[in-house]
Amino acid sequence: MPKGYNGKILRVDLTSGEIKREEPSEVIYRTYLGGGGLASYFLLKELPPGVDPLGPENILVFAATVITGVPVSGMVRYSVAAKSPLTGAYGEAEAGGFFGPELKFAGFDAVIIKGKALKPSYLWIHNGQAEVRSAAGIWGLETGPAQEKIRQELGDPRIRVAQAGPAGEKLVRFACVINELKHTNGRTGLGAVMGSKNLRAIAARGTEKLEYHDPEKLKELAKLQADLISQWGPNKVMRKLGTPNLVMALNTQGILPTKNFRTGVFEGAQNISGERMVETILKSEEGCYACSVRCKRAVEVAEGPYATSREYGGPEYETLSSLGSLLGIDNLAAISKGNELCNRYGLDTISAGVAIGLAMECFENGLLTKADTAGIEFRFGNAEAMVQGIEWIAQRNQGLGNLLAEGVKIAAAKIGQGAEKFALHIKGQELPMHDPRGKTGQGLSFALSPTGADHIEAPHDTPFANPGPMLGRIAPLGLLEAVPARDLGPQKVRNYVYLHFVWSLFNSLGICNFTAGPVWALPLNKWPELVKAVTGWETSLWELLKVGERTVTMARVFNLREGFGRKDDTLPDRLFAPLEGGPLQGKGIDRNEFADALTMYYEAMGWDPQDGVPTRGKLAELNLSWLDEYLKGKR
Amino acid sequence: MPKGYNGKILRVDLTSGEIKREEPSEVIYRTYLGGGGLASYFLLKELPPGVDPLGPENILVFAATVITGVPVSGMVRYSVAAKSPLTGAYGEAEAGGFFGPELKFAGFDAVIIKGKALKPSYLWIHNGQAEVRSAAGIWGLETGPAQEKIRQELGDPRIRVAQAGPAGEKLVRFACVINELKHTNGRTGLGAVMGSKNLRAIAARGTEKLEYHDPEKLKELAKLQADLISQWGPNKVMRKLGTPNLVMALNTQGILPTKNFRTGVFEGAQNISGERMVETILKSEEGCYACSVRCKRAVEVAEGPYATSREYGGPEYETLSSLGSLLGIDNLAAISKGNELCNRYGLDTISAGVAIGLAMECFENGLLTKADTAGIEFRFGNAEAMVQGIEWIAQRNQGLGNLLAEGVKIAAAKIGQGAEKFALHIKGQELPMHDPRGKTGQGLSFALSPTGADHIEAPHDTPFANPGPMLGRIAPLGLLEAVPARDLGPQKVRNYVYLHFVWSLFNSLGICNFTAGPVWALPLNKWPELVKAVTGWETSLWELLKVGERTVTMARVFNLREGFGRKDDTLPDRLFAPLEGGPLQGKGIDRNEFADALTMYYEAMGWDPQDGVPTRGKLAELNLSWLDEYLKGKR
Repeated sequence: MPKGYNGKILRVDLTSGEIKREEPSEVIYRTYLGGGGLASYFLLKELPPGVDPLGPENILVFAATVITGVPVSGMVRYSVAAKSPLTGAYGEAEAGGFFGPELKFAGFDAVIIKGKALKPSYLWIHNGQAEVRSAAGIWGLETGPAQEKIRQELGDPRIRVAQAGPAGEKLVRFACVINELKHTNGRTGLGAVMGSKNLRAIAARGTEKLEYHDPEKLKELAKLQADLISQWGPNKVMRKLGTPNLVMALNTQGILPTKNFRTGVFEGAQNISGERMVETILKSEEGCYACSVRCKRAVEVAEGPYATSREYGGPEYETLSSLGSLLGIDNLAAISKGNELCNRYGLDTISAGVAIGLAMECFENGLLTKADTAGIEFRFGNAEAMVQGIEWIAQRNQGLGNLLAEGVKIAAAKIGQGAEKFALHIKGQELPMHDPRGKTGQGLSFALSPTGADHIEAPHDTPFANPGPMLGRIAPLGLLEAVPARDLGPQKVRNYVYLHFVWSLFNSLGICNFTAGPVWALPLNKWPELVKAVTGWETSLWELLKVGERTVTMARVFNLREGFGRKDDTLPDRLFAPLEGGPLQGKGIDRNEFADALTMYYEAMGWDPQDGVPTRGKLAELNLSWLDEYLKGKR
Repeated sequence: MPKGYNGKILRVDLTSGEIKREEPSEVIYRTYLGGGGLASYFLLKELPPGVDPLGPENILVFAATVITGVPVSGMVRYSVAAKSPLTGAYGEAEAGGFFGPELKFAGFDAVIIKGKALKPSYLWIHNGQAEVRSAAGIWGLETGPAQEKIRQELGDPRIRVAQAGPAGEKLVRFACVINELKHTNGRTGLGAVMGSKNLRAIAARGTEKLEYHDPEKLKELAKLQADLISQWGPNKVMRKLGTPNLVMALNTQGILPTKNFRTGVFEGAQNISGERMVETILKSEEGCYACSVRCKRAVEVAEGPYATSREYGGPEYETLSSLGSLLGIDNLAAISKGNELCNRYGLDTISAGVAIGLAMECFENGLLTKADTAGIEFRFGNAEAMVQGIEWIAQRNQGLGNLLAEGVKIAAAKIGQGAEKFALHIKGQELPMHDPRGKTGQGLSFALSPTGADHIEAPHDTPFANPGPMLGRIAPLGLLEAVPARDLGPQKVRNYVYLHFVWSLFNSLGICNFTAGPVWALPLNKWPELVKAVTGWETSLWELLKVGERTVTMARVFNLREGFGRKDDTLPDRLFAPLEGGPLQGKGIDRNEFADALTMYYEAMGWDPQDGVPTRGKLAELNLSWLDEYLKGKR
């Protein structure tokens, strides 16, 4: 029976070299779907609490989903997950591009990696086969040459490569996984987990087609999606400007993170905007597997100190802000260079920017001096310092690079003298480039994401300010009232809870946030139709959103087991303090309102209101009673 | 824009005589849908706690739903609701038949009645108009003559009449509302509420057609439903035997309530079975508006002491058991007579049977004597006593009739001497004819129904023992494991919670339990399609089941406000004691398991585990924060 997925999981023990195929039951696939859902299932089942994230006991999961690779725009993402070396909590990050689909074409829905290889290695997966190969000639190379060498060695230029870069090898705690040099599982340091296992890369290639339950229905949905993408305003903006469209949008709202979140307006915003990129360095619009949005940017800086090669893509909004406005830098070429370096070395651009921001604010306040920075003036606005900082971090060069490579939480603690107040992180993960003071739901999102501050693991602020055309896409959730952006009352919590389930489902179905959901193309009611067309399951939005809720709850239990709780579901002090400029000058998040909203969220989730521990009844309802044993002593 | 409902509510103040039309916003309709959802909204908003259910302050709501009357089999039911004089808690009961659709054709989706008429009255609703008329010549009549007189007086034989009978006039606490002499809003004493308001009947007639958003889609769904009904085994059984098919089914399982729930097998079962009815007294299969199931029975007993007229229909399963096996009576003619009398007088057959059962068990144990029973041997098996008992109760004749008319809770307290242990009720409402000792989910259902023991307000036991063809109908809920019938663990709670939402939704959409849901025709995923075809709303199973959850929660808050809590969410002692015979002899419900399941249910619902008080966060999630004020001092 065609079902759209392989029904096969690859298990690799790098310590023993053993490779096994496993065929989980359909019940497992339907209950967890894939991506974050399936990964958190395996991590909870198989990873005991308290292990060293960078030790061989950590488990690394690469998980596509039951629909990944279906030829409908946006159904392309996959998840990498492990216990995070950056946070010590649940670690997960998604990437688009081509690797997720290729993994499925190669015969597996997911790969579970345990242990540590004796020597540098990479994993080669092809048409249902897998082998661990030596990475002897590859270890230490930048991502571009490494990818090239793997393709040459295996003799197929169409091989897809997901890899840790040199930063991962050096266990930089926010090293990422880089796919095809420009698509990244960016957050929570999963590249370092690869490095810790002596696993430099996974190469995948498959030539067998997946068969789907209802190909005609799929064609219909693909056409609908394509039509929506070509006709629907927000998608046209995504095609024209990509995510960089947000630079000017957020600057206008006064929430473009600037100078380490001190203010939300940046005088140089136009210089780093999506519009400016189009006028100057943009070479092509690129995209992911089977997607017609083509929101990805490839940029080129032909010459000068910031000469940048287009094969590493171009900066997304997050990077334009984290290496730009956040650091007071308005040099688009320098930011592009910084982005390229992060992709060459395998560094998360968000955490890298925030780490450099910490260094700059410490420098400006005398907590770091030229003695720490090899004589460089590590001040906001200094593009050279930013580029140099990335080099140092990736190589763990200089004391400063080695320090910042630990992430801002550890780095600030080592710097001491109150540096913590300049360290913008939650649970140890650096803040993405969204200021919750102008959209408080984003504050809940940052605080409640199981991965620490994250803009992909939990929803952005509820975009109901303009309920007109958008409401049609989310109407099946039920009537959700438009709530003022800075509100934190019951309606905000209601909207947030529902969108949290949607966001969670994004990651378990591998649906790109930019092609479905509240703002983008495929309306929510089409999701169960899509899943049915692929798998044949008579599913519903009820069942799918319950998977979303289930996955949020699993990650919560993972973190509770590691000692996290309410104390960790908070924001950096700076976000409770007023913004220093712009239209929202003087506005901070109210601590009492925030704590109250958090309590309401816990209650709405069926978690105890004190520490957010899921109740036994709620776990029963979600078919998660097997997690009760992990909460002993917590209730 | 066609929307399938009127958008108009009729408000009648019987004290002042004022009649008003109200047009609630679409938001109200979409949030509460109709039936139990809409009724509980108005009751919570407008009825202060602590009022006398039989005083003029009580509010009586007759509510159809947004889809009631659509020409698809089974979309026919409507709700009557008020504070119950039987329980003092939330009162609600559904009826099929023709009145709900007619109310909508007459121009209104619901009627809200307040106050008390100075003199006996009835309400006449026709094509958007309404008037309160004198019931001078009608008061005191049995239901048949009363209906006839109303039709004559108004000059239209096609008028539909929902009325309280003489029992309602006399404030029998389990007097029902009778529609067309044979469809009943049976439970919670709503006929007494009508009586207390001097409102004998509501007559309705409408000739204007409702327009639907997508008539073609409706035709498609109507055809699907018709095909399923004609082809699908369980529906064929319903056509052939009606609900009386359950007599033999439950007797075989050992859970046919017999001799006041002492045992679950009845030696005379075959004599009162659906099969025997077909062979003997069945005159025709009848049905409800636009429904092809035709599960209703019309019976006739031509002569003898139990001569029965077919215009009052025939006994359903519940009645065959409550006036039959429960009382040890296997005389089908006598049961049919008892049923006819209940319909003539407007008595709930379930409560009537259980009340007589109390009297019989008290008599057999010497708590009542012939002095109390006008010399009649009030013993199990005595059909004459049963028929006489109904007469007495309806008229509040004899001391015994007046006593039993109060319901078994009050009656047993008045009898004293330990009679309480023979009073089979929950929250004051008499048990329906399902023994939870053989299906423990039914125990949860009885304990948790806001109306007291009730088989319509909360789900029957989860029917997952045979997941084959059934699973297809409920598949959209997600994977629900088959759970042994006597289990009370987490999986049972999970199944129960989801089905509770489905059952609640039955009552807010007016969908007949016999034409949709787990066992019957229209699969769950067609419900949102149906609602969309009628209203145009881009809804989903998520949104609809959330209405189900919302409605359960509203009724909970209503009852908490009236002082109910965990102490009331329990079963009569007899159900914790072992069955005295049959295949389940020796089996009772385990008190600890039951208490534990109750706690898990509360937790799964986002209610506090001590007393089942919904948390503030849960109310926020369900868009019910307006109920917070009613829970002051409860949290």
